[in-house]
Amino acid sequence: MAKLKNDTLIRALLRQPTAYTPVWVMRQAGRYLPEYNQTRARAGSFLALAQNPALATEVTLQPLARFPLDAAIVFSDILTVPDAMGLGLTFTEGEGPRFERPLREERAIRNLKVPDPGSELRYVMDTVSEVRKALAGGVPLIGFSGSPYTLACYMVEGGGSSDFRTVKTMLRDRPDLLHHILEVNCRAVTAYLNAQIESGAQVVMVFDTWGGTLSAAGYLEFSLAYMRRVVEGLKREHQGERIPCILFTKGGGAWLEAIAASGCDAVGVDWTLDIGTARARVGERVALQGNLDPQTLLAGPEAVRSGVAAVLASYGTGNGHVFNLGHGIVQQTPPGNVAVLVDAVHELSRRYH
Amino acid sequence: MAKLKNDTLIRALLRQPTAYTPVWVMRQAGRYLPEYNQTRARAGSFLALAQNPALATEVTLQPLARFPLDAAIVFSDILTVPDAMGLGLTFTEGEGPRFERPLREERAIRNLKVPDPGSELRYVMDTVSEVRKALAGGVPLIGFSGSPYTLACYMVEGGGSSDFRTVKTMLRDRPDLLHHILEVNCRAVTAYLNAQIESGAQVVMVFDTWGGTLSAAGYLEFSLAYMRRVVEGLKREHQGERIPCILFTKGGGAWLEAIAASGCDAVGVDWTLDIGTARARVGERVALQGNLDPQTLLAGPEAVRSGVAAVLASYGTGNGHVFNLGHGIVQQTPPGNVAVLVDAVHELSRRYH
Repeated sequence: MAKLKNDTLIRALLRQPTAYTPVWVMRQAGRYLPEYNQTRARAGSFLALAQNPALATEVTLQPLARFPLDAAIVFSDILTVPDAMGLGLTFTEGEGPRFERPLREERAIRNLKVPDPGSELRYVMDTVSEVRKALAGGVPLIGFSGSPYTLACYMVEGGGSSDFRTVKTMLRDRPDLLHHILEVNCRAVTAYLNAQIESGAQVVMVFDTWGGTLSAAGYLEFSLAYMRRVVEGLKREHQGERIPCILFTKGGGAWLEAIAASGCDAVGVDWTLDIGTARARVGERVALQGNLDPQTLLAGPEAVRSGVAAVLASYGTGNGHVFNLGHGIVQQTPPGNVAVLVDAVHELSRRYH
Repeated sequence: MAKLKNDTLIRALLRQPTAYTPVWVMRQAGRYLPEYNQTRARAGSFLALAQNPALATEVTLQPLARFPLDAAIVFSDILTVPDAMGLGLTFTEGEGPRFERPLREERAIRNLKVPDPGSELRYVMDTVSEVRKALAGGVPLIGFSGSPYTLACYMVEGGGSSDFRTVKTMLRDRPDLLHHILEVNCRAVTAYLNAQIESGAQVVMVFDTWGGTLSAAGYLEFSLAYMRRVVEGLKREHQGERIPCILFTKGGGAWLEAIAASGCDAVGVDWTLDIGTARARVGERVALQGNLDPQTLLAGPEAVRSGVAAVLASYGTGNGHVFNLGHGIVQQTPPGNVAVLVDAVHELSRRYH
């Protein structure tokens, strides 16, 4: 494998000195890019695109051809793991993910198996290694997974939900069943991320999209405890290189100290937290990733620049900051604004390093 | 006006000693009660019910006939103020509120007027004074309003929204216009709450349902700044009695210290915050109201009791706690569980006082 030409992201995640603040964008390979929509149309559907390593590689690289981003993130979905468990993932246009066979019967729950990343999730590993090869050491490649609790939410509900009543009912009435699902998910996510590392991922990130809907005690018991076990089970070094890992709980600002104490290298923060305040709360324990409001990218270039400047100023001088949005990029974003964002981060951050 | 027989809520909001922790429930007069649904059916619609003082009084009192709650809250809607401004509020079954004339044109925004609570919002004042009379000094009556920013969200979007893109676009591109709306809303909310106080409300609460969707800086500038001005403009004493005021920002846990410094007497906290941690953060500056996950009330009685016990234990010994849910009660709640909740709070809290 080629040595990294731009290791700014890795260094920032490990809180080492860098010349500027690295930047990438959650969902950077997505529907705001016309070339993405063309490739997706060729694939036929989102799922077909994600499951085709050649096309998934193509869309992973598209934003890097346009913008001098400091990282690639493998094009995939957080729900590949439960799909590989046999729940039958489908996407309906404009409706989000659905599982054909939601997980509610005790028998089905007890029969849940950890999928083999090398066979049922082979297409992800193939994409990771193809992308890694195509990057030729330019920038690092990020692999990712949904968190055990977030996967459980979709698995039990059968899709998204405004109140997650089904999974919360299970949490209360049959915590043993939910813990069993989380236990299996935890092993599955760990194996899946380690397989991505072996296939070429140089950073891994766990997306906990729904942990923020839990109470404080519920979050610690049902989401963070399992992410901590994932972190403990990760290969933190591969072929002589440190593999940093990032945890991101949307709406998890209240629990920042607990997340930072999980053993991860970096914590993603959404835009509701002032990143300077977040930094003061976690001190030098972890790097922070974030946190511009994605809606800022719907404004004019000047507003994007001043939004970037405000986040950088709030974080302040020193290492350990990875610039990103506070959540995924919005579909209606003009691609030119991403260019403005990346340039502004690179230019304006130098004075803080 | 009769002297209060049960002033536990008032005393707790002012952080004075009480024999037990007072409890009321957000949306306690609501669709989980069969008698509420009957009265609503007689009224014809939610809006007709809210605008009919006799029927609104009837539903306000219904939960108090069933449960020994420590407060009544006037039955109304947070959107009465923009409706009185002429935006044309409607409710479609299962869809939530809509405004017929959303506020987007500069001319309409510049023409926005503070409604006169004594005429355009007369029906609310009539309900407040009727309820106050009917309570006969049993428990205190809470009046309320939406926050200036939350009202602006609905006024500009024309209804609820998953991303509040229209109001956030205005915030970025025409902050002068949004500030103008907020300025008018601020004066309207202040006049509206003061009129409720004069009509008999003994506590007032501001519901900031959507401030939590803003960035930290955005929240301070566009939501909290205007709530602070509302608090400053409130009659804090009426007929020799202190009128405590409560601010509640859903998802505002990250900004707890700033909210507590606004001059309010109490801060409502949602269930994502551990209330003991929240107490440690604000010290003795304010009382706290909350924060059981409303979904807990869908479980069995034992789970409700242990949920109550956990919140009480987390808050710990001492004054300044008002028990409530972390958000409105869920429609599917079995009414018997509210009885369990209220009894558990009254019984289990005595050891902490």
